[in-house]
Amino acid sequence: MMENTASRDDEYLRRFVPSRPLCVAAFDYAQTQLPLTLLHHSLRVFIFAKWLAEREDDVWGTQDATADLLFVASICHDLGATHHHDGELRFEVEGANAAKEFALSQGVEEKSAHLIWIAVAVHTSPQIAERIHPLSRLVRLGVMIDFRQATRDELGANEYAGSIESQIPRLEIEKILGDAVVKQALPKRHKAPAASWPGVLVRAHLENPDWNGVNRGF
Amino acid sequence: MMENTASRDDEYLRRFVPSRPLCVAAFDYAQTQLPLTLLHHSLRVFIFAKWLAEREDDVWGTQDATADLLFVASICHDLGATHHHDGELRFEVEGANAAKEFALSQGVEEKSAHLIWIAVAVHTSPQIAERIHPLSRLVRLGVMIDFRQATRDELGANEYAGSIESQIPRLEIEKILGDAVVKQALPKRHKAPAASWPGVLVRAHLENPDWNGVNRGF
Repeated sequence: MMENTASRDDEYLRRFVPSRPLCVAAFDYAQTQLPLTLLHHSLRVFIFAKWLAEREDDVWGTQDATADLLFVASICHDLGATHHHDGELRFEVEGANAAKEFALSQGVEEKSAHLIWIAVAVHTSPQIAERIHPLSRLVRLGVMIDFRQATRDELGANEYAGSIESQIPRLEIEKILGDAVVKQALPKRHKAPAASWPGVLVRAHLENPDWNGVNRGF
Repeated sequence: MMENTASRDDEYLRRFVPSRPLCVAAFDYAQTQLPLTLLHHSLRVFIFAKWLAEREDDVWGTQDATADLLFVASICHDLGATHHHDGELRFEVEGANAAKEFALSQGVEEKSAHLIWIAVAVHTSPQIAERIHPLSRLVRLGVMIDFRQATRDELGANEYAGSIESQIPRLEIEKILGDAVVKQALPKRHKAPAASWPGVLVRAHLENPDWNGVNRGF
Protein backbone atom coordinates (compact mmCIF):
# COMPACT_ATOMS: atom_id res chain seq x y z
CA MET A 1 0.00 0.00 0.00
CA MET A 2 2.69 2.42 -1.07
CA GLU A 3 0.40 4.65 -3.07
CA ASN A 4 0.01 8.21 -1.97
CA THR A 5 -3.53 9.32 -1.16
CA ALA A 6 -2.81 12.99 -0.58
CA SER A 7 -2.52 14.89 -3.81
CA ARG A 8 -4.29 12.80 -6.38
CA ASP A 9 -6.55 13.91 -9.16
CA ASP A 10 -9.47 11.57 -8.44
CA GLU A 11 -12.10 14.01 -9.65
CA TYR A 12 -12.91 11.90 -12.73
CA LEU A 13 -14.52 9.50 -10.23
CA ARG A 14 -16.95 12.11 -8.88
CA ARG A 15 -19.55 11.55 -11.55
CA PHE A 16 -20.11 8.06 -10.14
CA VAL A 17 -20.73 9.41 -6.63
CA PRO A 18 -24.35 10.32 -5.75
CA SER A 19 -24.57 14.04 -5.00
CA ARG A 20 -26.29 13.56 -1.64
CA PRO A 21 -24.29 14.90 1.35
CA LEU A 22 -23.59 11.54 3.05
CA CYS A 23 -22.24 10.02 -0.15
CA VAL A 24 -20.05 13.03 -0.90
CA ALA A 25 -18.69 13.00 2.66
CA ALA A 26 -18.01 9.26 2.47
CA PHE A 27 -16.16 9.62 -0.83
CA ASP A 28 -14.12 12.53 0.56
CA TYR A 29 -13.23 10.37 3.57
CA ALA A 30 -12.39 7.32 1.43
CA GLN A 31 -10.08 9.46 -0.72
CA THR A 32 -8.01 10.25 2.37
CA GLN A 33 -7.87 6.59 3.45
CA LEU A 34 -7.65 4.38 0.38
CA PRO A 35 -4.87 3.97 -2.17
CA LEU A 36 -6.18 4.52 -5.69
CA THR A 37 -6.50 0.84 -6.52
CA LEU A 38 -8.77 0.24 -3.52
CA LEU A 39 -10.73 3.42 -4.18
CA HIS A 40 -11.44 2.24 -7.72
CA HIS A 41 -12.43 -1.23 -6.50
CA SER A 42 -14.67 0.13 -3.76
CA LEU A 43 -16.43 2.49 -6.15
CA ARG A 44 -16.96 -0.32 -8.66
CA VAL A 45 -18.45 -2.44 -5.86
CA PHE A 46 -21.01 0.30 -5.20
CA ILE A 47 -21.76 0.73 -8.90
CA PHE A 48 -22.27 -3.02 -9.39
CA ALA A 49 -24.35 -3.36 -6.23
CA LYS A 50 -26.54 -0.45 -7.29
CA TRP A 51 -26.90 -1.88 -10.80
CA LEU A 52 -28.09 -5.16 -9.29
CA ALA A 53 -30.46 -3.43 -6.86
CA GLU A 54 -32.02 -1.44 -9.69
CA ARG A 55 -32.43 -4.54 -11.80
CA GLU A 56 -34.12 -6.31 -8.90
CA ASP A 57 -36.08 -3.24 -7.81
CA ASP A 58 -34.53 -3.69 -4.36
CA VAL A 59 -35.20 -0.71 -2.07
CA TRP A 60 -31.72 -1.12 -0.57
CA GLY A 61 -30.22 0.34 -3.69
CA THR A 62 -33.02 2.36 -5.20
CA GLN A 63 -34.23 4.69 -2.43
CA ASP A 64 -32.05 7.57 -1.36
CA ALA A 65 -31.88 6.78 2.36
CA THR A 66 -30.92 3.15 1.84
CA ALA A 67 -28.74 3.81 -1.20
CA ASP A 68 -26.76 6.18 1.04
CA LEU A 69 -26.03 3.28 3.39
CA LEU A 70 -25.09 1.12 0.41
CA PHE A 71 -22.65 3.79 -0.73
CA VAL A 72 -21.01 4.12 2.68
CA ALA A 73 -20.71 0.36 3.15
CA SER A 74 -19.30 -0.15 -0.34
CA ILE A 75 -16.79 2.70 -0.35
CA CYS A 76 -15.61 1.77 3.17
CA HIS A 77 -15.61 -2.04 2.87
CA ASP A 78 -11.82 -2.39 2.53
CA LEU A 79 -10.75 0.38 4.93
CA GLY A 80 -9.35 -2.30 7.22
CA ALA A 81 -6.75 -3.26 4.61
CA THR A 82 -5.02 0.14 4.94
CA HIS A 83 -2.38 1.23 7.43
CA HIS A 84 -4.88 3.71 8.90
CA HIS A 85 -6.92 0.84 10.33
CA ASP A 86 -4.34 -1.89 10.88
CA GLY A 87 -5.43 -2.84 14.40
CA GLU A 88 -5.48 -6.19 16.17
CA LEU A 89 -8.60 -7.60 14.50
CA ARG A 90 -9.08 -9.19 11.08
CA PHE A 91 -9.24 -6.50 8.40
CA GLU A 92 -12.97 -7.00 7.78
CA VAL A 93 -13.78 -6.16 11.40
CA GLU A 94 -11.34 -3.24 11.57
CA GLY A 95 -12.98 -1.93 8.40
CA ALA A 96 -16.45 -2.46 9.87
CA ASN A 97 -15.49 -0.51 12.98
CA ALA A 98 -14.05 2.34 10.91
CA ALA A 99 -17.07 2.44 8.58
CA LYS A 100 -19.52 2.50 11.47
CA GLU A 101 -17.56 5.19 13.29
CA PHE A 102 -17.58 7.31 10.13
CA ALA A 103 -21.33 6.81 9.68
CA LEU A 104 -22.06 7.79 13.28
CA SER A 105 -19.88 10.88 12.91
CA GLN A 106 -22.13 11.93 10.01
CA GLY A 107 -25.30 11.61 12.08
CA VAL A 108 -26.38 8.19 10.82
CA GLU A 109 -28.45 6.53 13.56
CA GLU A 110 -27.02 3.57 15.47
CA LYS A 111 -29.27 0.96 13.88
CA SER A 112 -28.39 1.97 10.32
CA ALA A 113 -24.72 2.38 11.20
CA HIS A 114 -24.70 -1.17 12.52
CA LEU A 115 -26.15 -2.43 9.24
CA ILE A 116 -23.10 -0.86 7.60
CA TRP A 117 -20.91 -2.60 10.20
CA ILE A 118 -22.49 -5.95 9.37
CA ALA A 119 -22.16 -5.51 5.61
CA VAL A 120 -18.45 -4.70 5.89
CA ALA A 121 -17.69 -7.36 8.51
CA VAL A 122 -19.26 -10.23 6.54
CA HIS A 123 -18.29 -9.20 3.01
CA THR A 124 -15.82 -12.13 2.85
CA SER A 125 -18.22 -14.63 4.49
CA PRO A 126 -19.64 -16.80 1.71
CA GLN A 127 -23.32 -17.77 1.91
CA ILE A 128 -23.78 -15.73 5.10
CA ALA A 129 -23.39 -12.23 3.63
CA GLU A 130 -25.97 -13.08 0.96
CA ARG A 131 -28.61 -13.97 3.59
CA ILE A 132 -28.01 -11.97 6.74
CA HIS A 133 -29.44 -8.68 5.43
CA PRO A 134 -30.29 -7.13 2.01
CA LEU A 135 -27.55 -4.49 2.45
CA SER A 136 -24.90 -7.13 3.18
CA ARG A 137 -26.11 -9.14 0.19
CA LEU A 138 -25.72 -6.21 -2.20
CA VAL A 139 -22.20 -5.37 -0.98
CA ARG A 140 -21.18 -9.04 -1.20
CA LEU A 141 -22.57 -9.41 -4.73
CA GLY A 142 -20.90 -6.15 -5.76
CA VAL A 143 -17.59 -7.60 -4.54
CA MET A 144 -18.26 -10.90 -6.31
CA ILE A 145 -19.14 -9.14 -9.59
CA ASP A 146 -15.82 -7.31 -9.35
CA PHE A 147 -13.81 -10.47 -8.63
CA ARG A 148 -15.54 -13.53 -10.05
CA GLN A 149 -16.27 -14.32 -13.67
CA ALA A 150 -18.78 -16.97 -12.55
CA THR A 151 -20.81 -14.31 -10.76
CA ARG A 152 -20.76 -12.05 -13.83
CA ASP A 153 -21.99 -14.92 -15.97
CA GLU A 154 -24.66 -15.89 -13.48
CA LEU A 155 -25.98 -12.35 -13.12
CA GLY A 156 -25.57 -11.35 -16.77
CA ALA A 157 -23.15 -8.61 -15.69
CA ASN A 158 -20.35 -9.06 -18.25
CA GLU A 159 -21.11 -6.19 -20.57
CA TYR A 160 -21.97 -3.71 -17.82
CA ALA A 161 -18.92 -4.64 -15.73
CA GLY A 162 -16.66 -4.27 -18.74
CA SER A 163 -17.98 -0.79 -19.51
CA ILE A 164 -17.38 0.31 -15.90
CA GLU A 165 -13.87 -1.14 -15.83
CA SER A 166 -12.97 0.85 -18.93
CA GLN A 167 -13.79 4.01 -16.97
CA ILE A 168 -12.55 2.91 -13.52
CA PRO A 169 -9.59 0.62 -14.24
CA ARG A 170 -8.73 -2.41 -12.11
CA LEU A 171 -5.12 -1.32 -11.41
CA GLU A 172 -4.09 -4.83 -10.25
CA ILE A 173 -6.64 -4.87 -7.46
CA GLU A 174 -6.31 -8.62 -6.75
CA LYS A 175 -2.53 -8.39 -6.36
CA ILE A 176 -2.62 -5.25 -4.22
CA LEU A 177 -5.48 -6.29 -1.94
CA GLY A 178 -4.20 -9.84 -1.39
CA ASP A 179 -0.70 -8.58 -0.58
CA ALA A 180 -2.02 -5.88 1.76
CA VAL A 181 -4.05 -8.36 3.83
CA VAL A 182 -1.11 -10.77 4.08
CA LYS A 183 1.34 -8.01 4.95
CA GLN A 184 -0.83 -6.92 7.87
CA ALA A 185 -1.33 -10.45 9.15
CA LEU A 186 2.19 -11.88 8.97
CA PRO A 187 3.36 -10.07 12.12
CA LYS A 188 -0.09 -10.39 13.77
CA ARG A 189 -1.37 -13.88 13.06
CA HIS A 190 -4.46 -13.27 15.18
CA LYS A 191 -5.64 -11.07 12.29
CA ALA A 192 -5.86 -14.21 10.14
CA PRO A 193 -7.82 -17.00 11.88
CA ALA A 194 -7.73 -20.23 9.86
CA ALA A 195 -11.46 -20.09 9.06
CA SER A 196 -11.36 -16.64 7.46
CA TRP A 197 -10.38 -15.08 4.15
CA PRO A 198 -7.22 -13.53 5.65
CA GLY A 199 -6.39 -17.01 6.99
CA VAL A 200 -6.69 -18.53 3.52
CA LEU A 201 -4.49 -15.79 2.02
CA VAL A 202 -1.79 -16.15 4.68
CA ARG A 203 -1.75 -19.92 4.29
CA ALA A 204 -1.37 -19.65 0.50
CA HIS A 205 1.44 -17.14 0.95
CA LEU A 206 3.33 -19.30 3.43
CA GLU A 207 3.03 -22.33 1.18
CA ASN A 208 4.84 -20.45 -1.57
CA PRO A 209 6.48 -17.35 -0.10
CA ASP A 210 8.47 -16.52 -3.25
CA TRP A 211 5.41 -16.39 -5.49
CA ASN A 212 5.03 -12.86 -6.79
CA GLY A 213 1.71 -13.01 -8.60
CA VAL A 214 -1.83 -12.65 -7.29
CA ASN A 215 -2.16 -14.56 -4.01
CA ARG A 216 -3.25 -18.10 -4.87
CA GLY A 217 -5.82 -18.10 -2.09
CA PHE A 218 -7.54 -15.04 -3.58
CA MET B 1 -23.91 -39.58 12.63
CA MET B 2 -24.96 -43.17 13.18
CA GLU B 3 -26.56 -42.65 16.55
CA ASN B 4 -30.25 -43.26 16.90
CA THR B 5 -32.31 -40.32 18.11
CA ALA B 6 -35.62 -42.10 18.44
CA SER B 7 -35.80 -44.10 21.65
CA ARG B 8 -33.21 -42.60 23.93
CA ASP B 9 -33.42 -41.90 27.60
CA ASP B 10 -32.28 -38.26 27.56
CA GLU B 11 -34.42 -37.27 30.52
CA TYR B 12 -31.40 -36.76 32.81
CA LEU B 13 -30.74 -33.67 30.67
CA ARG B 14 -34.13 -32.10 31.43
CA ARG B 15 -32.99 -30.47 34.65
CA PHE B 16 -30.71 -28.23 32.60
CA VAL B 17 -33.56 -27.07 30.36
CA PRO B 18 -35.49 -23.97 31.49
CA SER B 19 -39.12 -24.91 32.14
CA ARG B 20 -40.55 -22.17 29.93
CA PRO B 21 -42.61 -23.46 26.96
CA LEU B 22 -40.30 -22.29 24.16
CA CYS B 23 -37.26 -23.93 25.78
CA VAL B 24 -39.10 -27.19 26.39
CA ALA B 25 -40.36 -27.23 22.80
CA ALA B 26 -36.88 -26.50 21.47
CA PHE B 27 -35.34 -29.29 23.53
CA ASP B 28 -38.05 -31.71 22.39
CA TYR B 29 -37.31 -30.72 18.79
CA ALA B 30 -33.54 -31.01 19.25
CA GLN B 31 -33.97 -34.50 20.71
CA THR B 32 -35.58 -35.62 17.46
CA GLN B 33 -32.84 -34.04 15.33
CA LEU B 34 -29.49 -34.39 17.10
CA PRO B 35 -27.42 -37.47 17.89
CA LEU B 36 -26.64 -37.67 21.60
CA THR B 37 -23.12 -36.25 21.27
CA LEU B 38 -24.41 -33.11 19.55
CA LEU B 39 -27.31 -32.81 21.99
CA HIS B 40 -24.85 -32.87 24.90
CA HIS B 41 -22.58 -30.33 23.21
CA SER B 42 -25.45 -28.00 22.32
CA LEU B 43 -26.82 -28.10 25.85
CA ARG B 44 -23.38 -27.38 27.31
CA VAL B 45 -23.08 -24.41 24.94
CA PHE B 46 -26.30 -22.99 26.37
CA ILE B 47 -25.20 -23.65 29.95
CA PHE B 48 -21.82 -21.99 29.39
CA ALA B 49 -23.35 -19.03 27.55
CA LYS B 50 -25.88 -18.54 30.32
CA TRP B 51 -23.17 -18.81 32.98
CA LEU B 52 -21.22 -16.08 31.20
CA ALA B 53 -24.30 -13.87 30.75
CA GLU B 54 -25.12 -14.16 34.45
CA ARG B 55 -21.57 -13.32 35.43
CA GLU B 56 -21.66 -10.26 33.17
CA ASP B 57 -25.23 -9.34 34.09
CA ASP B 58 -26.02 -9.44 30.36
CA VAL B 59 -29.78 -9.23 29.68
CA TRP B 60 -29.35 -11.63 26.76
CA GLY B 61 -28.93 -14.49 29.17
CA THR B 62 -30.63 -13.28 32.32
CA GLN B 63 -34.13 -12.19 31.28
CA ASP B 64 -36.65 -14.84 30.34
CA ALA B 65 -37.57 -13.50 26.89
CA THR B 66 -33.98 -13.15 25.76
CA ALA B 67 -32.75 -16.28 27.54
CA ASP B 68 -35.39 -18.17 25.55
CA LEU B 69 -33.75 -16.99 22.33
CA LEU B 70 -30.36 -17.95 23.74
CA PHE B 71 -31.66 -21.44 24.46
CA VAL B 72 -33.12 -21.91 20.98
CA ALA B 73 -29.97 -20.62 19.25
CA SER B 74 -27.69 -22.77 21.40
CA ILE B 75 -29.64 -26.02 21.21
CA CYS B 76 -30.14 -25.59 17.44
CA HIS B 77 -26.69 -24.28 16.48
CA ASP B 78 -25.43 -27.57 14.99
CA LEU B 79 -28.68 -28.74 13.38
CA GLY B 80 -27.04 -28.25 9.99
CA ALA B 81 -24.51 -31.00 10.73
CA THR B 82 -27.25 -33.66 10.76
CA HIS B 83 -28.76 -35.58 7.86
CA HIS B 84 -32.08 -33.85 8.53
CA HIS B 85 -30.65 -30.56 7.31
CA ASP B 86 -27.97 -31.61 4.84
CA GLY B 87 -28.93 -29.19 2.07
CA GLU B 88 -26.80 -27.35 -0.47
CA LEU B 89 -25.47 -24.63 1.86
CA ARG B 90 -22.68 -24.70 4.44
CA PHE B 91 -23.90 -26.40 7.61
CA GLU B 92 -23.96 -23.17 9.63
CA VAL B 93 -26.46 -21.62 7.21
CA GLU B 94 -28.56 -24.79 6.92
CA GLY B 95 -28.66 -24.85 10.72
CA ALA B 96 -29.57 -21.16 10.85
CA ASN B 97 -32.44 -21.72 8.42
CA ALA B 98 -33.71 -24.69 10.44
CA ALA B 99 -33.41 -22.85 13.76
CA LYS B 100 -35.25 -19.79 12.44
CA GLU B 101 -37.97 -21.94 10.90
CA PHE B 102 -38.44 -23.72 14.22
CA ALA B 103 -38.60 -20.41 16.11
CA LEU B 104 -41.19 -18.97 13.71
CA SER B 105 -43.27 -22.15 14.06
CA GLN B 106 -43.38 -21.48 17.79
CA GLY B 107 -44.69 -17.94 17.36
CA VAL B 108 -41.37 -16.14 17.81
CA GLU B 109 -41.57 -12.87 15.89
CA GLU B 110 -39.52 -12.40 12.73
CA LYS B 111 -37.03 -9.96 14.22
CA SER B 112 -36.15 -12.24 17.15
CA ALA B 113 -36.13 -15.32 14.91
CA HIS B 114 -33.61 -13.59 12.67
CA LEU B 115 -31.36 -12.90 15.67
CA ILE B 116 -31.38 -16.67 16.18
CA TRP B 117 -30.54 -17.11 12.49
CA ILE B 118 -27.58 -14.75 12.82
CA ALA B 119 -26.25 -16.41 15.97
CA VAL B 120 -26.30 -19.85 14.35
CA ALA B 121 -24.96 -18.68 10.97
CA VAL B 122 -21.93 -16.87 12.41
CA HIS B 123 -21.06 -19.24 15.26
CA THR B 124 -17.90 -20.35 13.38
CA SER B 125 -16.95 -16.80 12.27
CA PRO B 126 -14.14 -15.65 14.56
CA GLN B 127 -14.15 -12.00 15.70
CA ILE B 128 -17.42 -11.35 13.87
CA ALA B 129 -19.76 -13.45 16.04
CA GLU B 130 -18.40 -11.73 19.15
CA ARG B 131 -19.33 -8.27 17.83
CA ILE B 132 -22.32 -8.54 15.55
CA HIS B 133 -24.93 -8.92 18.33
CA PRO B 134 -24.95 -9.85 22.05
CA LEU B 135 -26.87 -13.08 21.33
CA SER B 136 -24.33 -14.18 18.71
CA ARG B 137 -21.52 -13.34 21.10
CA LEU B 138 -22.95 -15.51 23.87
CA VAL B 139 -23.46 -18.50 21.56
CA ARG B 140 -19.96 -18.10 20.14
CA LEU B 141 -18.37 -17.88 23.58
CA GLY B 142 -20.41 -20.87 24.75
CA VAL B 143 -18.98 -22.83 21.82
CA MET B 144 -15.47 -21.58 22.54
CA ILE B 145 -15.74 -22.50 26.23
CA ASP B 146 -16.73 -26.01 25.17
CA PHE B 147 -13.86 -26.37 22.66
CA ARG B 148 -10.94 -24.15 23.62
CA GLN B 149 -8.80 -24.39 26.74
CA ALA B 150 -7.51 -20.86 26.07
CA THR B 151 -11.06 -19.50 26.31
CA ARG B 152 -11.66 -21.36 29.57
CA ASP B 153 -8.48 -19.90 30.99
CA GLU B 154 -9.28 -16.42 29.79
CA LEU B 155 -12.81 -16.46 31.19
CA GLY B 156 -11.99 -18.35 34.38
CA ALA B 157 -14.35 -21.13 33.29
CA ASN B 158 -12.25 -24.21 34.05
CA GLU B 159 -13.90 -25.35 37.25
CA TYR B 160 -17.44 -24.66 36.10
CA ALA B 161 -16.91 -26.31 32.71
CA GLY B 162 -15.43 -29.37 34.37
CA SER B 163 -18.40 -29.76 36.69
CA ILE B 164 -20.83 -29.54 33.76
CA GLU B 165 -18.84 -32.05 31.70
CA SER B 166 -19.02 -34.56 34.52
CA GLN B 167 -22.82 -34.40 34.24
CA ILE B 168 -23.12 -33.97 30.46
CA PRO B 169 -20.19 -35.95 29.04
CA ARG B 170 -18.31 -34.89 25.92
CA LEU B 171 -18.79 -38.22 24.08
CA GLU B 172 -16.03 -37.45 21.54
CA ILE B 173 -17.76 -34.33 20.30
CA GLU B 174 -14.73 -33.00 18.37
CA LYS B 175 -14.31 -36.26 16.45
CA ILE B 176 -18.01 -36.65 15.69
CA LEU B 177 -18.72 -33.05 14.70
CA GLY B 178 -15.60 -32.68 12.55
CA ASP B 179 -16.31 -35.95 10.73
CA ALA B 180 -19.98 -35.05 10.21
CA VAL B 181 -19.16 -31.71 8.58
CA VAL B 182 -16.55 -33.30 6.30
CA LYS B 183 -18.82 -36.18 5.35
CA GLN B 184 -21.52 -33.76 4.22
CA ALA B 185 -19.11 -31.61 2.24
CA LEU B 186 -17.05 -34.22 0.39
CA PRO B 187 -19.76 -34.92 -2.19
CA LYS B 188 -20.93 -31.27 -2.16
CA ARG B 189 -17.84 -29.08 -2.12
CA HIS B 190 -19.96 -25.94 -2.34
CA LYS B 191 -20.86 -26.63 1.31
CA ALA B 192 -17.22 -25.95 2.22
CA PRO B 193 -15.96 -22.65 0.74
CA ALA B 194 -12.23 -22.16 1.37
CA ALA B 195 -12.77 -19.23 3.73
CA SER B 196 -15.07 -21.11 6.12
CA TRP B 197 -14.77 -23.59 8.96
CA PRO B 198 -16.11 -26.44 6.79
CA GLY B 199 -13.49 -25.46 4.19
CA VAL B 200 -10.70 -25.73 6.76
CA LEU B 201 -11.98 -29.14 7.92
CA VAL B 202 -12.26 -30.51 4.38
CA ARG B 203 -8.80 -29.29 3.50
CA ALA B 204 -7.29 -30.91 6.59
CA HIS B 205 -9.08 -34.15 5.77
CA LEU B 206 -7.87 -34.21 2.17
CA GLU B 207 -4.29 -33.54 3.23
CA ASN B 208 -4.36 -36.68 5.34
CA PRO B 209 -7.36 -38.81 4.37
CA ASP B 210 -6.28 -41.85 6.39
CA TRP B 211 -6.05 -39.93 9.68
CA ASN B 212 -8.63 -41.32 12.06
CA GLY B 213 -8.40 -38.94 15.00
CA VAL B 214 -10.06 -35.58 15.58
CA ASN B 215 -9.89 -33.54 12.35
CA ARG B 216 -6.64 -31.56 12.42
CA GLY B 217 -8.41 -28.42 11.23
CA PHE B 218 -10.81 -28.53 14.19
